Formats: sequence, C-alpha cells, structure tokens
Amino acid sequence: MTLILSNDDVRALLAMPDCIDCLDDAYRELGAGRGVSRTRSDSITPTSRDDALYSLKSMDGVIPKLGVGAVRINSDIVTWPKIGNSMRRVKSPAAPGGRWVGLVLLFSSETGEPLAIMPDGVMQRIRVGATNGLGVKYMARKDAKSVGILGSGWQAGAQLSAACAVRAIETIRCFSPSRENREKFCADMTAELGVEVAPVDSPEAAISGSDIVMCATNTVDPLFFERWLEPGMHLTSIKRPEIEENAVVACNRVAIHTRDSKPILTATRGLDVPEHGEDRGWGVAAGIDFDTLPTLPQLIGGEAVGRASDDETTCFLNNLGLGYQFAAAGALVYRRAKERGVGHELPTDWFTEDVHP
Amino acid sequence: MTLILSNDDVRALLAMPDCIDCLDDAYRELGAGRGVSRTRSDSITPTSRDDALYSLKSMDGVIPKLGVGAVRINSDIVTWPKIGNSMRRVKSPAAPGGRWVGLVLLFSSETGEPLAIMPDGVMQRIRVGATNGLGVKYMARKDAKSVGILGSGWQAGAQLSAACAVRAIETIRCFSPSRENREKFCADMTAELGVEVAPVDSPEAAISGSDIVMCATNTVDPLFFERWLEPGMHLTSIKRPEIEENAVVACNRVAIHTRDSKPILTATRGLDVPEHGEDRGWGVAAGIDFDTLPTLPQLIGGEAVGRASDDETTCFLNNLGLGYQFAAAGALVYRRAKERGVGHELPTDWFTEDVHP
Repeated sequence: MTLILSNDDVRALLAMPDCIDCLDDAYRELGAGRGVSRTRSDSITPTSRDDALYSLKSMDGVIPKLGVGAVRINSDIVTWPKIGNSMRRVKSPAAPGGRWVGLVLLFSSETGEPLAIMPDGVMQRIRVGATNGLGVKYMARKDAKSVGILGSGWQAGAQLSAACAVRAIETIRCFSPSRENREKFCADMTAELGVEVAPVDSPEAAISGSDIVMCATNTVDPLFFERWLEPGMHLTSIKRPEIEENAVVACNRVAIHTRDSKPILTATRGLDVPEHGEDRGWGVAAGIDFDTLPTLPQLIGGEAVGRASDDETTCFLNNLGLGYQFAAAGALVYRRAKERGVGHELPTDWFTEDVHP
Repeated sequence: MTLILSNDDVRALLAMPDCIDCLDDAYRELGAGRGVSRTRSDSITPTSRDDALYSLKSMDGVIPKLGVGAVRINSDIVTWPKIGNSMRRVKSPAAPGGRWVGLVLLFSSETGEPLAIMPDGVMQRIRVGATNGLGVKYMARKDAKSVGILGSGWQAGAQLSAACAVRAIETIRCFSPSRENREKFCADMTAELGVEVAPVDSPEAAISGSDIVMCATNTVDPLFFERWLEPGMHLTSIKRPEIEENAVVACNRVAIHTRDSKPILTATRGLDVPEHGEDRGWGVAAGIDFDTLPTLPQLIGGEAVGRASDDETTCFLNNLGLGYQFAAAGALVYRRAKERGVGHELPTDWFTEDVHP
C-alpha cells in the first residue's frame, strides 16, 4: 500500500529532536558521498494574472542507508507585493479552498515503489528549523543560554524549537514589527517550549546580550546589522538577505548549509522574475564566496571547525533547501506512520505499472 | 478532485494522431519561448543488490497556453545485462507484483492544484512515437509509402503508428533478431494499422528500398550502418547509438529532438554508471555537434528546413525526452478524462495544504 499522509500526520510523527538527529546522520552520509542531492530547479512562466507567475519547483534526494529517495514538488502561484519597505515573495493560495500546493513523494531505493505521498508544509518548517538547529549544535557556544529572534511567523517557531533541542536555552526574546503578532507568538511558544519567550519592541532589545540570534522572516531586505554583533554570538538566518552582508564578513567563522547554491532557473523568454536576481547576487559585492565557505555536512563530518573559542562570532547561512532533507525526514515519518497505522492507504498498483516505461 | 488514471485509461484516451497534433502545437510554443522545459536529472545510488543501481529520474515542463505543468518521475532499479553482443539497460520490475515505477504528475499553472497523477508507461511510448512521427512529418518525403523497422518491442509499434499517422504508408517490413518476436509483432501491427507489416529475416531486407527507416530497440550498439543509406531515405532512431555515427554524418540533413541534450547526473561518490558515459560520448569522434544541429521545435517553427528535395537523405535523432512532452500529452489526457468521467477521483485536499510551504 502507498500511504497518503497529511500535514497533521507529519506534525504528530516528526518531533524536532528526532528530525535533528536524522538529518545529522543523513548529512554525515551526504558528506561521505554516500547520498545524493539533486540541485533544485525552478520552472517559471506567466499566468493569466498580471501580478502572479507560476513556479514549478522540484528537488530530489536519495539516501541508500535509509533505503529511500524523495522528490519534493512545489506548484506555486507567486506574487511579490511590497509590504512596508520590503518586497516579499508571497505564494498565493490559489488552489481550491484557498490552499497551497507542495508535495513530497517518497520512494523505496530498493524496489522503486512509491511508499508515501505527503504535503511538504509542516516538514518544510521542521527541516528548516532542524537545519539551523544543527548550525547551532556545531557552531554556537556549548553553554549558550539565550536566544534573540527576529520574526514571529511560521518559520520562527521551528527555529526556537530547534535551538532548544540542541542547547539548554533559558531565555528567549522576540521582535517582529507587529506587536500583536509577536505577543501572540511569544505566548504560544512559551507554552510549547516551557521556556519564557518575551516580546520586545525593537530588534536591538531582542539581540543585545543574546548568545544566539536567529533571523526567521520572509523579507528580502537586511534586518540584522554588523553593529549589533557581539563577541561569542552565533548568528543564523533562513534567508541570506536577512543579514547585512558586512555582518557576515565580520564574523570569525561562517558556514553555509550546502555548496549547491544555485537553483537551475528556466523561464519563458523575456520573463522578469524578481527574487532570483537579488538572492543570487547577495554577498558578491562584500566578497562572500559560497564556493569556499564550509558546509554543514563538513562541520558534521569533522572536516571543518564550527567554533574554536567562546569569544568567536559565528554565522550559519541556510542558503538553500535540499530534496535530500525531505528524503531523510520523509523516511522517518514513513517509518513512524507504518508503526502507528497512520494515513490513507491506497493500492500501490495505482502508482506502479506493468509496462517497462 | 484529483484524478488517478491508469495506463489503460491513457491508452484509451490518447490516440496517436491526437498526440502528434498536440505535441506539434506544444513545440511551436516551446520554440517561441512561451513554454518551459526543465533539463532531466538522474540521481543514482547503489542498492543492496550487486547487479543493480537505483535511479531517481525527474523532468518538468510547463505550457501556459494549456494551463498545465507536469513532473515526470521514474524510480527505477536498473541493471545492465549483456544480451547477445549488446549491453542492454534493463529496468528491473522490483516493485510489489513485479512492477515498474514511473509517474506523471499534472498541475494547473493557473491555480497550482494537482489535476491528475498517472503512470508514465503508455504515455512514454506514445510520446516517443509521436516525436519521431513529427520528425517524419517535417523531414521525410511527402510521398513516402514504405517503412523498414528494426526492432519489434514495446516502442516499435508506436513508431509505426506514428509514421502511418503522418504519411500514407502502404508497406512495412520488420526485422528483429528473434523470429518468433517479429512474427508476432507483425501480425499484431497488421491488425492494428490496417497496413501489412511483413517480417523479414535480415536488417537489409527491411531497409533496402524503404522510404523511411526506423530504429526502435533498446540496444546501445549500432544496428543501422552507413552502407545501407539510399537517396531520399529518412532515417530515425529512439536511441542515438542505434545508428552508426558515419551514417548520420553521411545524411544531407540531420535534426535532433531538442538542444537540451545533457541530463544532469548526480551519483554517489565513485559509482560506476554504465550507460551515461557511452550515450553522452556518442557522435563526438565523428564530429556530430549537438549544439548546432537544428531541433524539432525549429523545424516546426520554420526556422530550419527538414528536407529541400526528394533525393536528400534525412535523419532525425530522438536524442532526449522532455518533461514538457508529458505536460502536453498529460493536458490532453486530463481533458478527455474529465469529459468522459474516467479515473479514480481523490479529494484535492489530500494533495494541497493550508500552510504556506
């Protein structure tokens, strides 16, 4: 049977500490050349709407040790509204019922069979958190106790869960521009983490004195600046442009998620695609060279040092997601789902065939 | 609702002449820069079997005019047995029930929603046939009446259907090494096409005097040779190595399916992947330059000439499949399936989500 799982299933089956552990091991495999990660591709076209483009994004990964391959697909109607001073990339929930479309298809790398199909949203959030959590694990001070976070959205919660999974965090301060949002976020996260998350009314109030600073927004403008850097601080972001380039340059050590940093963009002729240009140009003027920075698999494999002393400033840039992460997290979710009898079962024959393709 | 379709559904809904017409128009869109085709990628790893590798292959395409995007995925256990003097690439039916795994996922490029999921096998056969059929349409003599075909397998039948869809074919001769196979194939195809398909006992007997010669095997060794070329002949293959390189060089005009001729191969470290090397090296020593040969979209768009006189020898090389073809054929199958109420309907909510991914 092929399992159809929901975001609720994934939420129930994929705890942050487990996801961090499974990614930790999966990166060790990848770093040792025993796993495969296929560069993300974005196919972009116009739609019949003036303000929206269609983006069909896919990324694959295979982990022989876990016996799985995964394809993650996003079928997005994308807009770029200006919100405040920032231009945001916003996926429009244009599917029936006002919904988004992201899928993870999980296959057996031993038989080829489709094991499961699930939405990507909850897993996406957890794997981004888990990845930055591994950045904290391998780069932040061992005795880090305090977190300052910028952002109070969907990704921010996972960032805090991840930090708390790898360090004994005692205090968390959060700033985001909307007072209402940050207060609700802080109340929710305090309940979830069992650590007080305090709302503050400026980025400086969140950052000053924090051992770990996390940027977790969807802005494409910088929101952390060099002048805020303090000795011993670990800095992390979910989108590169969140951090002022000079702040990255000023850090003693910088690592990135993965070397594979250029999605393959294919668009219809003459199409103007806003975000890609900005994101890809980021860091160049400041001399940040993504081809030489150590990667997370290298930190995990011991080929690079994340931190050499308590005084160092460190920075982890989650520069790009990988289909490989969905293979790792997907394998864990699938195993748990089978153990617990979760999900809709469909005949595997619906997704296999008796003709040689 | 999201439709789950079977190979039987696709077979019933996708007639060869309709597929040729829809691809004809889709290539016009692609050639004009109004469609997107994403380069195929192959992620390859070991399996626990000594004689087999795992291959996770994906390719995407979007056609705004038809309002669809497609992702085609193959999750294959691949072996390379020696059969006779040839090394063949054989996908092992390792999924439950002795089955293969190839899927086409069709999305709306207007709403992002998943429209349908279907196996790729029957569509794969028809689109390969339709593509070479378009090669015949734009390159063979208008009055071509006879076909010689080498091969009697799964793909060969579609090649003949396609030739008959675009030219008034009166005689067909078929050679393949196994007498039993070719006789059965000829009887079946005679019944299907209403044109006599005669089995012959040598390749020369199939080729000599034929207006169109079709190679339709899965060999990686040449089976058509330069000495067999005759004035006015149109030559076509489904795999480049089927044709001796010198035979291609000797043709007056050569066109390829698509410029996009290098799948992106990612494999685990040190893995020996047999076929890719051979296929990619094909033509280089003979000076065949895939970067300058005209493509099928160029022939269709009138940017290149397929044939200038009845005496010319022409050659069409179906050098690589495109996800784009599955978007075109998939859109047609989906429209027909909706009209006729075919397929399993599943709630679209199972494949969409209420969280921003």
